[in-house]
Amino acid sequence: MVLAQLNYRLCDYAANTAKIIRVIDENRNADLIVFSELAVSGYHPQDLVEEPDFLVRQQQALDRIIAATRSSAQGACPYVAIGAVTRNTGVGKRLHDSLVLVRNGEVVLTYHKQLLPTYDIFDEHRHFEPGDDRAAVADINGHRVGFLVCEDGWNADERDYRANPLRTLALHGVDLIVSINASPSNVGKQRLRHDLFTRVARAYQVPIVYVNQVGANDQIVFDGASFAVDPAVGVVYELPLFSEAAAEVRYDAHGFSANGARLRTPVARYLTDPEFYYQQIKIGLHDYVRKVGFRGVVVGSSGGIDSALTIALAADTLGAANVKAVTMPSIYSSAGSVNDSKALCRNLGVELYLHEIGELFASYKAGFLRSFGAEPSKLTRENVQARIRGTILMEYSNHFGHLVLSTGNKSEMSVGYATLYGDMNGGLNLIGDLYKTEVYALAQYYNALHGRDIIPAAVIEKEPSAELSEGQRDTDSLPPYAVLDQILKLHIEGARLRADERSDAEARLAGLEAGDRQDLIARVANMVAHTEFKRRQAAPIIRCRARAFGNGRQMPLAAAY
Amino acid sequence: MVLAQLNYRLCDYAANTAKIIRVIDENRNADLIVFSELAVSGYHPQDLVEEPDFLVRQQQALDRIIAATRSSAQGACPYVAIGAVTRNTGVGKRLHDSLVLVRNGEVVLTYHKQLLPTYDIFDEHRHFEPGDDRAAVADINGHRVGFLVCEDGWNADERDYRANPLRTLALHGVDLIVSINASPSNVGKQRLRHDLFTRVARAYQVPIVYVNQVGANDQIVFDGASFAVDPAVGVVYELPLFSEAAAEVRYDAHGFSANGARLRTPVARYLTDPEFYYQQIKIGLHDYVRKVGFRGVVVGSSGGIDSALTIALAADTLGAANVKAVTMPSIYSSAGSVNDSKALCRNLGVELYLHEIGELFASYKAGFLRSFGAEPSKLTRENVQARIRGTILMEYSNHFGHLVLSTGNKSEMSVGYATLYGDMNGGLNLIGDLYKTEVYALAQYYNALHGRDIIPAAVIEKEPSAELSEGQRDTDSLPPYAVLDQILKLHIEGARLRADERSDAEARLAGLEAGDRQDLIARVANMVAHTEFKRRQAAPIIRCRARAFGNGRQMPLAAAY
Repeated sequence: MVLAQLNYRLCDYAANTAKIIRVIDENRNADLIVFSELAVSGYHPQDLVEEPDFLVRQQQALDRIIAATRSSAQGACPYVAIGAVTRNTGVGKRLHDSLVLVRNGEVVLTYHKQLLPTYDIFDEHRHFEPGDDRAAVADINGHRVGFLVCEDGWNADERDYRANPLRTLALHGVDLIVSINASPSNVGKQRLRHDLFTRVARAYQVPIVYVNQVGANDQIVFDGASFAVDPAVGVVYELPLFSEAAAEVRYDAHGFSANGARLRTPVARYLTDPEFYYQQIKIGLHDYVRKVGFRGVVVGSSGGIDSALTIALAADTLGAANVKAVTMPSIYSSAGSVNDSKALCRNLGVELYLHEIGELFASYKAGFLRSFGAEPSKLTRENVQARIRGTILMEYSNHFGHLVLSTGNKSEMSVGYATLYGDMNGGLNLIGDLYKTEVYALAQYYNALHGRDIIPAAVIEKEPSAELSEGQRDTDSLPPYAVLDQILKLHIEGARLRADERSDAEARLAGLEAGDRQDLIARVANMVAHTEFKRRQAAPIIRCRARAFGNGRQMPLAAAY
Repeated sequence: MVLAQLNYRLCDYAANTAKIIRVIDENRNADLIVFSELAVSGYHPQDLVEEPDFLVRQQQALDRIIAATRSSAQGACPYVAIGAVTRNTGVGKRLHDSLVLVRNGEVVLTYHKQLLPTYDIFDEHRHFEPGDDRAAVADINGHRVGFLVCEDGWNADERDYRANPLRTLALHGVDLIVSINASPSNVGKQRLRHDLFTRVARAYQVPIVYVNQVGANDQIVFDGASFAVDPAVGVVYELPLFSEAAAEVRYDAHGFSANGARLRTPVARYLTDPEFYYQQIKIGLHDYVRKVGFRGVVVGSSGGIDSALTIALAADTLGAANVKAVTMPSIYSSAGSVNDSKALCRNLGVELYLHEIGELFASYKAGFLRSFGAEPSKLTRENVQARIRGTILMEYSNHFGHLVLSTGNKSEMSVGYATLYGDMNGGLNLIGDLYKTEVYALAQYYNALHGRDIIPAAVIEKEPSAELSEGQRDTDSLPPYAVLDQILKLHIEGARLRADERSDAEARLAGLEAGDRQDLIARVANMVAHTEFKRRQAAPIIRCRARAFGNGRQMPLAAAY
């Protein structure tokens, strides 16, 4: 069978259908070709599925795909399993999230996803009615193949849902389970999938093939990494991470084989955290820019590590020629602000614009003085500088027709150490799901990957400062990031924090005196709570971790925290 | 029994509990006191319900309420029905949305909501496990009283859910159904509730008491308007709209009575659309400001109708002394921009600040010229003016510690006729769910209500213009609002559009030539689609209609539209 992990643009039926049909045409001799969940539209069109023409247009695309499965002149005629939205004619939500199995121009079976994830970034109960528990099984090439959709396989502990469709299917006596998925990636997710499906394959002694989509839609990234699990061995085959692929794996009574060789050993290589972030962010940026229709980006370059890393990642993704950097010094800026920006952009080949803000800052202050007969407060002066820069960046965005990238990291975004309508301006944020300590690690990885200090050592080594007031340092108002980040991980990600990170965070905080620790945790929690209004208006953040700001964390504004 | 519609601040247990216990103490001789859905925490704390301390703190509050139901010295001891989050000890989501019936310090029964709305602004499947279909019935004062929670009563057509808990309860042979609710208001909703519950009360020949909460949480407003339905008559009793109330209604074999009089006639008065919007927006603003902790607001005054109406509504809500208006003329501003702002603020007693932006505009242009050797484009010049004003408003916000209100109406917000980080700046938008034609109607209602032209006739009569370029008119780039608004209503609200509005919109558009109409509809749909990124970063909008921008309409950014 062929595992096809493709990169879909939401509701771009012409492009999606062409890709799907090309894979079908190229694999006419396969017995089965498997595409991912909601492949026809891409996952997930959100409320677009309720628009009056959605089902009509999706069905036209599906009909073209079904027609493409008709027997060719040579008579070869594979089964095709593909995910699509279908209409529910019964009671409940008017749609299903379905798997359609097709052969020779006919629909062989339609199966409706039973378990609808409605947590974190998932909201499937909003649109879909769960399917009933009829097993979807087809006899393909002498094997009884059972089909599932994504979450259907994730209730191994039988705690989250009453049904366990994977177990039901396995007990139904199938030879092989094929699962189609739209499984977003975050740090640690690849291993989580492997561990879970190895466990259930072993428990029910059934081989499993798992096909995912790849690419990014808004803040959500899919890593592909489709795989096959042999119940006796584990993951014996895996498609690449972060790129489109369609590859054939054979299955018979002796297990999986590929390219004529038996697959008998575990294959997965797990990325380090920085390796993962680098790939995840690159595809996130690449796809957002391409799918929305931009060519390039504009980034403010402060000389600090957040903007430096953002510019470097953008240059790797889009090419240096499609990145414009702007350094906007004020009287409070250090010499490094401009010089380090110059060194960075020289190393990358990125064009850097120097745009002084002193005159504008003076003009805002004069206007304030005229209105109030007094100088603006320190906070006002800091905010105004950030907003002047944000406005200038938008001028560059207008001029080049490029997207502005905002550069706040997760530590800053958590505690509100960012100016709304200022440095928060932008259409996308690359590093907003990385804590400051992870930003450093990724910058170091970046330089190691390129074999030289593209991000200048001075940028990595300087003490963090917004440079909005004389002698300002982040630690004037925040705990050291080494401490802050541990508190934030435990507070924001809670039960979704990776076990190794949890124990690490707890161990690091254990070093603080108990009273100080409680005070600090309370103070940080308070900062997080009272800056929710800023995050509500923030640019989409590329999701890298199990709990990112955005849809995955929905908090009220007017509440007692 | 006593119907208690109170205004809760989310998770403010001290305040919420005090209110609830006061009503209990004041009504010790009642047989039953009914509070609304999730009354202990307020509806809906969103992801706060998953925070580790949520259930602990809510339970402490509930325990205080339960203790307050203990028999007093006089021996009087009412039942109390109240909504709270409870723990699910079985499979599935770890929480329930429950009704707890309490008497004399003991929990008599706990019922879990069966139908969990997950559409529009509702997302209950995210946190709650549905309850099973056991009927919650108690014998109170000789009557068999059955209990339901909100959505449980809304499946009269048996199309949206497989269960119909209201029918099940009615067939169980109860004398009276008590429903606790957190039912947001939007235009037409009051009548919708009355029609539905009159229909089901008649169908099952059962009287129904419906208790709602009142007040606003973020963008959602609850109108209170709790009511009682006699199956033979309809709505015979209603608590006030938009204010807290606790009032006693008696029920016996002959029906409802209050203050010793039999209730035998329908009572509801339905607000006109402008009356409704006026009340809805006032409580929305009042509660947001109070619950977040502001005292006043800052509004940019352009001399146009949107800002004028916003300032007028804010003055009525918060008092003129707590509203600061700022007029920020540029070389493109008409004389009316300043003069009409002055007239408006004089009429209201609102302090108006004059803050020229000419020097700043020149300074931005000079900086642009230095970078690019050319004048900024028309679009850039327009955007910069809006962003200068947005930055100045934030200075006033800093200075006064007041919330900035943004002033885009729904027509503008739909087609993206607004500048991100400019006139979209603000923490709350009062009129963002009113189409431009509704803004005019509300302004006229406002003046009629006050018996004089507080909003100057010149403001209402002038042709709409953003005044960002020489001689600019909204109709240069937009269809006339009378046409645009009809297209938008059909396009954005779709099936949720009120029937009378739908037929009106269709009739108005029928006047256009068919080809022109299709072109215009396609052009408007395209504008809506391609400005989704702006709305994603917009301030919360007070929800007034059945489908508002915000959680109620979730659209992807990177998609083919």
